[in-house]
Amino acid sequence: MSSNYRNFRTSVPWLILFLEAVFIVLFYFLFSEDGASRSSISYPAFKDVNHMVIFGFGFFLTFLKRYGFSSTGFNLLIIVLGVQCSALIEGLLVFLPPRENEDPLKRITKAAVSMTAVVISTGAVLGKTNPVQLILMTVVEIIVFDMSRWINKTFLQIPDNINMMHVHLFGAYFGLAVSSRFSEPSPRTEKNASTPKSDLFSMLGTLFLWVFWPSFNSVQAVNDKSKAIYNTYFALAASAVTAFMLSVLTTKDGKFRMTHIHSGVLAGGVTVGYAAHSIEYPWIAMILGLLASVVAVLGSYCLQRCLNPALKIHDTSGIHFTFGLPGVLGAVAHVVLLVIKNWTNLPRLGYLVMVHVGAFCLTISVALLIGFITGLILNLKPFKTVPVSKYFEDQFYWEVSF
Amino acid sequence: MSSNYRNFRTSVPWLILFLEAVFIVLFYFLFSEDGASRSSISYPAFKDVNHMVIFGFGFFLTFLKRYGFSSTGFNLLIIVLGVQCSALIEGLLVFLPPRENEDPLKRITKAAVSMTAVVISTGAVLGKTNPVQLILMTVVEIIVFDMSRWINKTFLQIPDNINMMHVHLFGAYFGLAVSSRFSEPSPRTEKNASTPKSDLFSMLGTLFLWVFWPSFNSVQAVNDKSKAIYNTYFALAASAVTAFMLSVLTTKDGKFRMTHIHSGVLAGGVTVGYAAHSIEYPWIAMILGLLASVVAVLGSYCLQRCLNPALKIHDTSGIHFTFGLPGVLGAVAHVVLLVIKNWTNLPRLGYLVMVHVGAFCLTISVALLIGFITGLILNLKPFKTVPVSKYFEDQFYWEVSF
Amino acid sequence: MSSNYRNFRTSVPWLILFLEAVFIVLFYFLFSEDGASRSSISYPAFKDVNHMVIFGFGFFLTFLKRYGFSSTGFNLLIIVLGVQCSALIEGLLVFLPPRENEDPLKRITKAAVSMTAVVISTGAVLGKTNPVQLILMTVVEIIVFDMSRWINKTFLQIPDNINMMHVHLFGAYFGLAVSSRFSEPSPRTEKNASTPKSDLFSMLGTLFLWVFWPSFNSVQAVNDKSKAIYNTYFALAASAVTAFMLSVLTTKDGKFRMTHIHSGVLAGGVTVGYAAHSIEYPWIAMILGLLASVVAVLGSYCLQRCLNPALKIHDTSGIHFTFGLPGVLGAVAHVVLLVIKNWTNLPRLGYLVMVHVGAFCLTISVALLIGFITGLILNLKPFKTVPVSKYFEDQFYWEVSF
Repeated sequence: MSSNYRNFRTSVPWLILFLEAVFIVLFYFLFSEDGASRSSISYPAFKDVNHMVIFGFGFFLTFLKRYGFSSTGFNLLIIVLGVQCSALIEGLLVFLPPRENEDPLKRITKAAVSMTAVVISTGAVLGKTNPVQLILMTVVEIIVFDMSRWINKTFLQIPDNINMMHVHLFGAYFGLAVSSRFSEPSPRTEKNASTPKSDLFSMLGTLFLWVFWPSFNSVQAVNDKSKAIYNTYFALAASAVTAFMLSVLTTKDGKFRMTHIHSGVLAGGVTVGYAAHSIEYPWIAMILGLLASVVAVLGSYCLQRCLNPALKIHDTSGIHFTFGLPGVLGAVAHVVLLVIKNWTNLPRLGYLVMVHVGAFCLTISVALLIGFITGLILNLKPFKTVPVSKYFEDQFYWEVSF
Repeated sequence: MSSNYRNFRTSVPWLILFLEAVFIVLFYFLFSEDGASRSSISYPAFKDVNHMVIFGFGFFLTFLKRYGFSSTGFNLLIIVLGVQCSALIEGLLVFLPPRENEDPLKRITKAAVSMTAVVISTGAVLGKTNPVQLILMTVVEIIVFDMSRWINKTFLQIPDNINMMHVHLFGAYFGLAVSSRFSEPSPRTEKNASTPKSDLFSMLGTLFLWVFWPSFNSVQAVNDKSKAIYNTYFALAASAVTAFMLSVLTTKDGKFRMTHIHSGVLAGGVTVGYAAHSIEYPWIAMILGLLASVVAVLGSYCLQRCLNPALKIHDTSGIHFTFGLPGVLGAVAHVVLLVIKNWTNLPRLGYLVMVHVGAFCLTISVALLIGFITGLILNLKPFKTVPVSKYFEDQFYWEVSF
Repeated sequence: MSSNYRNFRTSVPWLILFLEAVFIVLFYFLFSEDGASRSSISYPAFKDVNHMVIFGFGFFLTFLKRYGFSSTGFNLLIIVLGVQCSALIEGLLVFLPPRENEDPLKRITKAAVSMTAVVISTGAVLGKTNPVQLILMTVVEIIVFDMSRWINKTFLQIPDNINMMHVHLFGAYFGLAVSSRFSEPSPRTEKNASTPKSDLFSMLGTLFLWVFWPSFNSVQAVNDKSKAIYNTYFALAASAVTAFMLSVLTTKDGKFRMTHIHSGVLAGGVTVGYAAHSIEYPWIAMILGLLASVVAVLGSYCLQRCLNPALKIHDTSGIHFTFGLPGVLGAVAHVVLLVIKNWTNLPRLGYLVMVHVGAFCLTISVALLIGFITGLILNLKPFKTVPVSKYFEDQFYWEVSF
């Protein structure tokens, strides 16, 4: 146990305490007016999103054989910190135009949806970061994401329900940029693998996410809730079917691979997120779901062989092909659907395409840039405490009894 | 690895692709009109049913020690295929009388409820079928079940909420008929067993099903939703209590047996399904639940000793006594309750009894007949690829790392 | 296997059968009038509470390495017995003033909330009781708790939503009093420990409870539902953060300890229960959550070293610091908040403080007294059948295959 690490152990509680104290003080000033208007986001919607981020993503990430405690535990820790932080930022942005005073339940719901970005990012560095790094990353990322969302909303006039769907893109590319600054695990290590039981726990989380995804995509829909729900369901169904198909085609001896299934079944929900409330017919959602799964499974095949080794990026949970590529596909599909719907009205069409492409580029570039800088900072001497040999080990952080 | 099996591996993706393509094309033609009326089935009801079939049944079937991936994975695969198929059949039946144009959310909900029949059937052949056989069985069964439901509704005028409850009966007897055509596993095999951890995962699924069962039984109730919910709860409570009691009485040294608990606690919900919305007093539901559990646990005792060996039926998850016998009891109880309620009005009583007994007989005979034929077809040379020695093995289909 | 134990095996089914028969007969007499007014408690609220007690607490208690079947199985058994019993008591109390005829769904919901007390108590004696003892304890405790709640309501005029929150206090101190009469496990035993997998199952249950806790605290709120929900959420968030902080500070080499996390993350929800609907600003809820977690984690440190060995109390799941101490803190905080709110109106303030402190003292003393007596009775010869060497063993009650 390096003395460096002992240092870290004395710092993590004080960092947490400092953050929590700051949050309480800020809550005192920012939540003091009584915003108790009727909620436009209902409790069931909040509960579903909360369930997804706490429980679904927590267990989605438990596939590493010796990292179950950290996957579920640290996930809970960063979400509760991040949600408080994001609710505060929403509270601060109230003072800037457009002024909207939302009730607390709606703020928490939006904060939980935003936190999906951070959870996705942690997937890329899963097992390689210590809690101090995770907490710093959470705070930076949630602030930057909320700012980028606010810029999109205020200057590009993108409606909130579209903006929110940038979480997948932002989370994936921020995570990849951070991950590129971490040393890769030794290729001979056995710890970066799963066991049948840990994969089953991960399947449990995946199925949770799958079942709740229609709630996620419809959480901000107002009039088109029902449409958003069934389009998401059909996209998820098509992508699940396609994931099984492609998994057999891409593995060596024609067997199913669990990671393909985990990525593929969710890809449809990610892709259809942007357009779920506006797609007219289910068959369009199904085709999007199918393409999403193709992108996810083939992406996993190509990225792990070509791109990642070239760029020296190690992406523990494969968030690039699970959330990143399907998110890009979804953004493209959204623009294509806008073009098809508005092609008779060329000036309006040009404007719409411009703002949506603009928002997309802004989101990705901010994510990559700030992610890269965050990665650099996290690898500075005072924070960098996990030796590569201790990657993917619960025992480094938890009292584990066997 | 037999060359026969390699063949199969080249066929499974194309079968899936073909089905999905057919679905998308049919959706294009059948879902094109905008049926976006207000939904009479709400999103919470849909989500609960979806949660049950995807998550509850998926983990309910994970009790085999080496079959967790296939139990949860293939369950997801057949449900998403089957729901799309069933939603299409509902779409086709719109052109036949009685014409009803339902909104998509209601269609998917009904499709998910119908798929319970298929999931129950797969329980009987769990571990003995390959994915091609499973997919073919799913498509045949869901089409036949939807047809039988339509016949009951159109010609026998059985209301939809009663018809739907035939899922348990249909699923159980279809599954048993299919299973009778598969070779039995070698009696010395160890793989057809559970470990404490796999039983705990199965308990997780069972408790999920138990908690959500009131949603299942009330999904189509309109005015009597609250009654259907509390009657189902009391029936489930009584059957859980009885299962613990009978398990101690029927095992050799007076211990509890996990399979008794898994079957017994759910039996009450199955039995009370037909009458949940019309039972006046909770004590009737409780007595039904108690009887259901008696039938399930004693049925498990008798069937496994006498009937199954005689008929050479191997029923992996014991669906005959978990869903089949309690379903029969429920159908009988429903008729008895009708007799008690209408005994002053003899002509109407005669008619009611006739149609309900008719629907019951029709459902069971269709299930047995088509199930038997399906079992024969699935065991034809081109499909039959799993040698008995490879039964109950994830490794035959999945990349498994230890 | 002692002959004593064989005796027990012949008694458990008859005890269960007797209770169920009594329940059905009483339901016949007490639930016969049709109380089918509109429900003020909705199905989602009922389902959430049901989910918590059956599933959340069931898996919360699975941390012992060889006691997973009993934790989840016996939890289900006592809940279904207790809910029926409690619903009957509510039915009987209808004949006493204040007469209220509630609809069945509301009765079951309140019964399920009350059962939380019993589930918490079982945590203290987990692994040390046989099913007969558990069932007797359940019946006694639920009757006494419902009586004490009725006394608080009728004589002290405490509103129902405050009364209900005494479940944590009552459950914890009843359980501790019962536990003090059981022999302690041998200190060298290995069975009283957890494995990484059993801790992960327990984490699963804990996260479930965490997600559903806002539903629990708002189940009886009428107008302030939204306030109760977000205050509970913020309290839970602050206590989760604090639990991680204190766990590092109190363990020997600065690692996280899973039991601290399990207790600490829930403590905030327990503490804020009394006042969730009346706290004006989230920062107050956050401070309460922070203090709750401090009490829970430091309590665990002190109790296990000083108090418990001195009093010879063995508390398997640490319910004293998870539910007991945070409950006391919540009751105190509730009175303090009342004082702050009403300090201008001294006569009313005096009355309010008196009744709340009275209800608190009454609840705790009844719990301790009856718990102690129950513990004595359960250790009489005819019930006491588990030798200390068989503590924490599924195999003693279940057919377990390895």
